[in-house]
Amino acid sequence: MVLGLRLYSALYPAWGPVCLLPRSFASCSGNPASCCTMPQLGLLHGRAWAVLFGQLRRPPGAVCIRAVHSHGQVVEAALATQMKPHQEKSNFIIKTPKGTRDLSPQQMVVREKILDMVVSCFKRHGAKGLDTPAFELKEILTEKYGEDSGLIYDLKDQGGELLSLRYDLTVPFARYLAMNKVKKMKRYHVGKVWRRESPTVVQGRYREFCQCDFDIAGQFDPMIPDAECLKIMCEILSGLQLGDFLIKMSWKDVRHEMVAKKGLAAEVADRIGDYVQCHGGVSLVKQMFQDPRLSQNKQALEGLGDLKLLFEYLTLFGIVEKISFDLSLARGLDYYTGVIYEAVLLQTPAHAEEEPLNVGSVAAGGRYDGLVGMFDPKGHKVPCVGLSIGVERIFSIVEQRMKTFGEKIRTTETQVFVATPQNNFLQERLKLIAELWDAGIKSELMYKNNPKLLTQLHYCENMGIPLVVIIGEQELKEGVIKLRSVASREEVAITRENLVAEIQKRLSES
Amino acid sequence: MVLGLRLYSALYPAWGPVCLLPRSFASCSGNPASCCTMPQLGLLHGRAWAVLFGQLRRPPGAVCIRAVHSHGQVVEAALATQMKPHQEKSNFIIKTPKGTRDLSPQQMVVREKILDMVVSCFKRHGAKGLDTPAFELKEILTEKYGEDSGLIYDLKDQGGELLSLRYDLTVPFARYLAMNKVKKMKRYHVGKVWRRESPTVVQGRYREFCQCDFDIAGQFDPMIPDAECLKIMCEILSGLQLGDFLIKMSWKDVRHEMVAKKGLAAEVADRIGDYVQCHGGVSLVKQMFQDPRLSQNKQALEGLGDLKLLFEYLTLFGIVEKISFDLSLARGLDYYTGVIYEAVLLQTPAHAEEEPLNVGSVAAGGRYDGLVGMFDPKGHKVPCVGLSIGVERIFSIVEQRMKTFGEKIRTTETQVFVATPQNNFLQERLKLIAELWDAGIKSELMYKNNPKLLTQLHYCENMGIPLVVIIGEQELKEGVIKLRSVASREEVAITRENLVAEIQKRLSES
Repeated sequence: MVLGLRLYSALYPAWGPVCLLPRSFASCSGNPASCCTMPQLGLLHGRAWAVLFGQLRRPPGAVCIRAVHSHGQVVEAALATQMKPHQEKSNFIIKTPKGTRDLSPQQMVVREKILDMVVSCFKRHGAKGLDTPAFELKEILTEKYGEDSGLIYDLKDQGGELLSLRYDLTVPFARYLAMNKVKKMKRYHVGKVWRRESPTVVQGRYREFCQCDFDIAGQFDPMIPDAECLKIMCEILSGLQLGDFLIKMSWKDVRHEMVAKKGLAAEVADRIGDYVQCHGGVSLVKQMFQDPRLSQNKQALEGLGDLKLLFEYLTLFGIVEKISFDLSLARGLDYYTGVIYEAVLLQTPAHAEEEPLNVGSVAAGGRYDGLVGMFDPKGHKVPCVGLSIGVERIFSIVEQRMKTFGEKIRTTETQVFVATPQNNFLQERLKLIAELWDAGIKSELMYKNNPKLLTQLHYCENMGIPLVVIIGEQELKEGVIKLRSVASREEVAITRENLVAEIQKRLSES
Repeated sequence: MVLGLRLYSALYPAWGPVCLLPRSFASCSGNPASCCTMPQLGLLHGRAWAVLFGQLRRPPGAVCIRAVHSHGQVVEAALATQMKPHQEKSNFIIKTPKGTRDLSPQQMVVREKILDMVVSCFKRHGAKGLDTPAFELKEILTEKYGEDSGLIYDLKDQGGELLSLRYDLTVPFARYLAMNKVKKMKRYHVGKVWRRESPTVVQGRYREFCQCDFDIAGQFDPMIPDAECLKIMCEILSGLQLGDFLIKMSWKDVRHEMVAKKGLAAEVADRIGDYVQCHGGVSLVKQMFQDPRLSQNKQALEGLGDLKLLFEYLTLFGIVEKISFDLSLARGLDYYTGVIYEAVLLQTPAHAEEEPLNVGSVAAGGRYDGLVGMFDPKGHKVPCVGLSIGVERIFSIVEQRMKTFGEKIRTTETQVFVATPQNNFLQERLKLIAELWDAGIKSELMYKNNPKLLTQLHYCENMGIPLVVIIGEQELKEGVIKLRSVASREEVAITRENLVAEIQKRLSES
């Protein structure tokens, strides 16, 4: 450790603004969130550091321990201990795998809030839950992801089946439908997926990340489920208050649908293309129907039919102004068959004092009518449309915002702390806290025989615990407990029998 | 498909009681939970079937499609399509990997209820959330699991780091503590772990399964965190109403602690062992202190100290009668350093009409004071104690019970269905449902232009949706909506402006 820190110090002048790195490591209190005030800078330098460090020559057999701490996750502690002469050196780095990270308690709170909000929207739209294994038979994933197939994580062949980690939640859903002969289903799925991408962690891209998917499978009247998917995207992005957003639909795929499948002449399709370039919503459709070259062409009218329907439904849902066409967007994955869409956050920050953020796409989806058929022995198709919320990027934005506004996050939900001002009161505290636990009250105490009262009260203030119950000699004698409000510091004596009821009353009021 | 079914028919007489298999497959409605009335039988035969089927010779180039459907998960649809002469045959089975399964919406509801209950207990005890990646550097897991190391899933070497899927949540937690220099933490973690065990799926053992862990890391006064872990186990197992249970502590490990670490004479330890065989709780400790061979031996008294403390605390927590020693239990994993414990469900069924279930261990835990030090460059130790709830087994028990009692599970939370008795009312329905969604009301409609009213009402009854709002010509003209209670079939007309408020009132009352 000493050598490691010395090396840092020696290198320090060369790093310029990196000074935060070794310092934050040296002074790290063990709370990962508290020592990452500059995550982006820190991470960039963390990587550069590792590269540079890797080039340093170490004297053979020397004890060399190094550690890099940045973003609360990428601590690296390389360890080359001096072993017995003929024994192999144990030399490994304590870190999470490349492109992955732990989520600290602070991050977990943010994540849970976002996921709760997303899932409650999915449930509001009548979706059922579903879970699939983290890995699938390798063949299930084959020929589904085009060029991206190289990014699939395979499991080692340890005898038995060849397996791969799932790359998204869509292919497992299609496999589930085909395997169980399910012809109709509205489901949501929240889970991790894995992709061997070059991790540029600063932008919120990871090799392991969480997806929140909502899909509607089944043969229905046109464009109703599609419109609902777009509505859900809008509800979630509005609900999360991430600032302004726009949902871009791929014109290329719609045009392909019109020309290749509905037989529209290419030049008429391009005439429509001229309109969609105008980024209009419902006005766009109106304009097209006023154009004699489109409205007097039977095929054009037919080709425009689905588009018209979709925009009608989006208007009824009150979200049409959020949708526009994008001429550059095109399908990314092999399995999409119709329109695809992508939600992007707009540059304008939600609050004037915030720095503008360019986070790009935060949700995407589309129609994939052929995927289930690829798994069905007879090729029976089940049309599907769905969406995926890119929650990792949303986490980054919300985290960033909380930092900007200095919001303090409670990492526990503890309601009551059981304290004592006296020594040798552990037994009474244990009896009391068991009563509270058994009454469903979230409670903590110090795991010490004789803690100091001030330490106990400070802990409550730091952790945001609202109530303290205090038991001591005097209280025991009088058959009461002192109930203290941490915020107001007011204390009242309450009889033991009334304590639980009084706490519950106070908690329900706050 | 036709050939596959014919093969089934031909083999049918040989199968005896397997008749359920091809029949349930043939008549499967697509709902996996509805067609598995005999999951154990079904699975056994599913496997036997696959073995036998694998031995059947197929004429070269013949179209052969087979499918087995059992337990809603192990559908196998092997597919050998006739391809162009020189093209390789695509031949794979559509299934989940060996030892894994999907969770259907019904199962997800059960799982969510159980996990909510477990997590709320962890939060009641002041635990913070934490998440770690699904895989770790291979070296992190090395030499932690003894003989079981062969069960670790490795990832394929695709260039870069050597990775393994996590085997439990304890080692990643210890790695997190060491990596971030955290000296003190009370955390819970709910997540999947993976083990290449021989899956005997019927007993609720899988290669992928969910663990719910609670751990207390840090240097504290003796036995307080240990007692809290045992309290948590009791709260969870009581709360889930799984019937009677007992927590067994390993005597071997306690004896080792006394003899090897506290220097107690082996024969005195065995004298204590005689007592612990009696399965007593607090009375056991009392008896030991009345035995002059123990109470007059200074070393014995010291050796008994921790044990005495623990039982005192368990008494204060009101759970001492749930704890007993087990002479056969011994540490399973390399990292345990002190007492280990295991919760077993007792044979007695909770209800007289239930079949007794032998599910064995449903929770386990113990002390592992050395694990964090294995990851620390200087070997600094962080004492830890924790527990893990084996939720998969608990899922099986609860599922089994629900089947026994014929409990119907709602798989959606939809509160209101938007219906119409008339054709061409899609637009009005869409406008109406968007109002409900925007008011936070969980609502659904049919994705059809002209659904039949009866179909819509039947759907509500089947899905357990409590309210229907009906809009038609008449209602539109009068500016009202009909609100119907599905249970009572009563309908009242409500003005459009008051609809949301009225629905919210009804929902809050029910």
